Amino acid sequence: MTTKEGSGPDTAQARKGRRPAARSDIASFIVMDVMRDAAAREAGGRSVMHLEVGQPGTPAPAAAIAAVQRALPAETLGYTAALGIDALRARIARIYQERYGVRVAENRIVVCTGSSAAFILAFLALFDTGASVALPSPGYPCYRHILSALGCRSPLIETGPDSRWMPTRDAVAALHRDVGLAGLLIASPANPTGTMIEPQRLAELVRFCDEQGIWFVSDEIYHGLTYGAPATTALSVSDDAIVINSFSKYYAMTGWRIGWLVVPPSLVRVVERLQQNLFISAPAVSQIAALGAFEGVDELERNRETYARNRALLLEALPEAGLSDLAPADGAFYLYADVSAVTDDARAFASAMLEEIGVAVTPGLDFDERRGHRFLRFSYAGTEADMAEAARRLKGWARLSGS
Amino acid sequence: MTTKEGSGPDTAQARKGRRPAARSDIASFIVMDVMRDAAAREAGGRSVMHLEVGQPGTPAPAAAIAAVQRALPAETLGYTAALGIDALRARIARIYQERYGVRVAENRIVVCTGSSAAFILAFLALFDTGASVALPSPGYPCYRHILSALGCRSPLIETGPDSRWMPTRDAVAALHRDVGLAGLLIASPANPTGTMIEPQRLAELVRFCDEQGIWFVSDEIYHGLTYGAPATTALSVSDDAIVINSFSKYYAMTGWRIGWLVVPPSLVRVVERLQQNLFISAPAVSQIAALGAFEGVDELERNRETYARNRALLLEALPEAGLSDLAPADGAFYLYADVSAVTDDARAFASAMLEEIGVAVTPGLDFDERRGHRFLRFSYAGTEADMAEAARRLKGWARLSGS
Repeated sequence: MTTKEGSGPDTAQARKGRRPAARSDIASFIVMDVMRDAAAREAGGRSVMHLEVGQPGTPAPAAAIAAVQRALPAETLGYTAALGIDALRARIARIYQERYGVRVAENRIVVCTGSSAAFILAFLALFDTGASVALPSPGYPCYRHILSALGCRSPLIETGPDSRWMPTRDAVAALHRDVGLAGLLIASPANPTGTMIEPQRLAELVRFCDEQGIWFVSDEIYHGLTYGAPATTALSVSDDAIVINSFSKYYAMTGWRIGWLVVPPSLVRVVERLQQNLFISAPAVSQIAALGAFEGVDELERNRETYARNRALLLEALPEAGLSDLAPADGAFYLYADVSAVTDDARAFASAMLEEIGVAVTPGLDFDERRGHRFLRFSYAGTEADMAEAARRLKGWARLSGS
Repeated sequence: MTTKEGSGPDTAQARKGRRPAARSDIASFIVMDVMRDAAAREAGGRSVMHLEVGQPGTPAPAAAIAAVQRALPAETLGYTAALGIDALRARIARIYQERYGVRVAENRIVVCTGSSAAFILAFLALFDTGASVALPSPGYPCYRHILSALGCRSPLIETGPDSRWMPTRDAVAALHRDVGLAGLLIASPANPTGTMIEPQRLAELVRFCDEQGIWFVSDEIYHGLTYGAPATTALSVSDDAIVINSFSKYYAMTGWRIGWLVVPPSLVRVVERLQQNLFISAPAVSQIAALGAFEGVDELERNRETYARNRALLLEALPEAGLSDLAPADGAFYLYADVSAVTDDARAFASAMLEEIGVAVTPGLDFDERRGHRFLRFSYAGTEADMAEAARRLKGWARLSGS
């Protein structure tokens, strides 16, 4: 349930007057519950096609593994500097020159324990309790749950086909007039839609935030995973944008929990102090793996070609199965389907899909509490064989096209 | 400086009205600045004896490394379940039976990204904005800085030789009458003193908290590193205690960022939701290393014997060098010295010690803002050779005994 769960009233703590903090009462991240249900089904010996997981099915590139294998016998792997290993910070900074032609000083790179820690650091660095940070809806649910746990508000800007699933400048301006925004967070390519913002609209939004004194936070975690035009970094518009990225998606290193932040020079020391105190440093072994991953680009590009084929396969198969209302699938590895023609309870529908045909997908409620009951997210980060098998099962499922 | 640093007023952000969040204005963790200065000295080709670092000089035990080497070619190492790998949770639960004779259900174990993440999860789960969480002073500075960033108050209970460096029940009760405590956090063995709480006093404090509806948080990160009586877990007194532990110290795995929380059954789901949203999971590779570390206890016990010899060496050498006023060194790998006989500015004194004789130590201000200017912390987690050389340099340093 995305509704808040609280905790049972009849606990030893409650009887003594001890309760969990009110701010801990955030919704669960449903996709992780779906993963648990899917794993239970597999443990029971039944086949599951995993279209629910927001992570590559492949391990870190061989070059990353090799770097770790070289380091294991040779290095102590203690705490690193709070901002990260210098060589990794320098290599990350070079990405901006290579991919986007933008110069970023390596001192502005903060190596973090995944984009998860990057969000915690950025939100604490930028937003006080009570601050309003605008989020597009649908969107990655952890944004609003982390903000909520940290005492911030997250007014939503609903997007849809009419706005090509991205906020417009007018929508942001109207919300700013209403509530006074401290921040705006945009992800492109977005989760769950896979849709990208047009470079012109990105520039408009960043400039609007610069003019209005609103922090612009750009989640660029799916950069590198695009199937047409490449993605644009917010840093190409303004050095004051806060950029969050990670080795989890393009670099296929989710479980290594390693990512980064790019901050303006004036925030480096602010974020360094927070990192020292809240995290000490990102895992040393993961930093070494990340540095090694840069030597594995050929393998990563082959992964991307697999996603491209999976995407093409599902873009053909889902409409054949009766699911033709999809958000523009520009990047990432998701398709976001409006399933209102077949159900008004996407969560129950997803449960039935797992139970009856062994295809795991994520109900839209994770991403959009108001409208998600009529959406499903399909992840195509798995293998081609699994996508083909999932497509076969979906096309034969009576609850869909009644075939 | 432990004084808050803020950020320069003349930034592009400030000119546009954008500033870092007020809550980001926490002090730096001085020991990390000392480590940076020491590293700079070494990079310049000069010798440094590292008595500043709160981490073992040894790598993870060979058994942990071997477990990772087996996993690297065989496993995808993606996200794990939010609460951690089942086998690791079960193995951690067994520690309580083996070390303390206390039964703890494995479902109560939450694997975290170091004790750092465990603190963030526990504080968000237990304490709302404005809550008061009592901390002993001196103490680990990140407690109060994390609490401050999360909007909590941390009233201090000053300890010293008269109270054997631990809070008394009377002191906690008096503070509770004054401010109404939501929590009390105790570490034993403590950082920076190395001093342990007597089992009887621990039981009194835990019971007082249970009676008064105050959450008791027990930081047991230095358990296993004791040189006389073993440490007592708060779980032997109450199942409602929140216990935080880590593989960083006894298991010598700081840079792997892996630790755990033990929570009452009623809080498991609360913490699971927070972990899903804030961290997703702890690093998979570190979880595998941690599980492997349990096979390396012989090596870890040899590490502990090294610390014991280092401790004995410094307990003899520091008084010979003129530093005889030390807190009881029951455990951990620290000696906390009152240096008021030789300086009233321990920070400058530590800088001079690094500059003039190449011995890096941590000034007490990290741990006690009011009285720390007359204390230094010596870590003996390094090698015996380094401890002997540090002792030799200290005994010959003109600023100390004037020899």
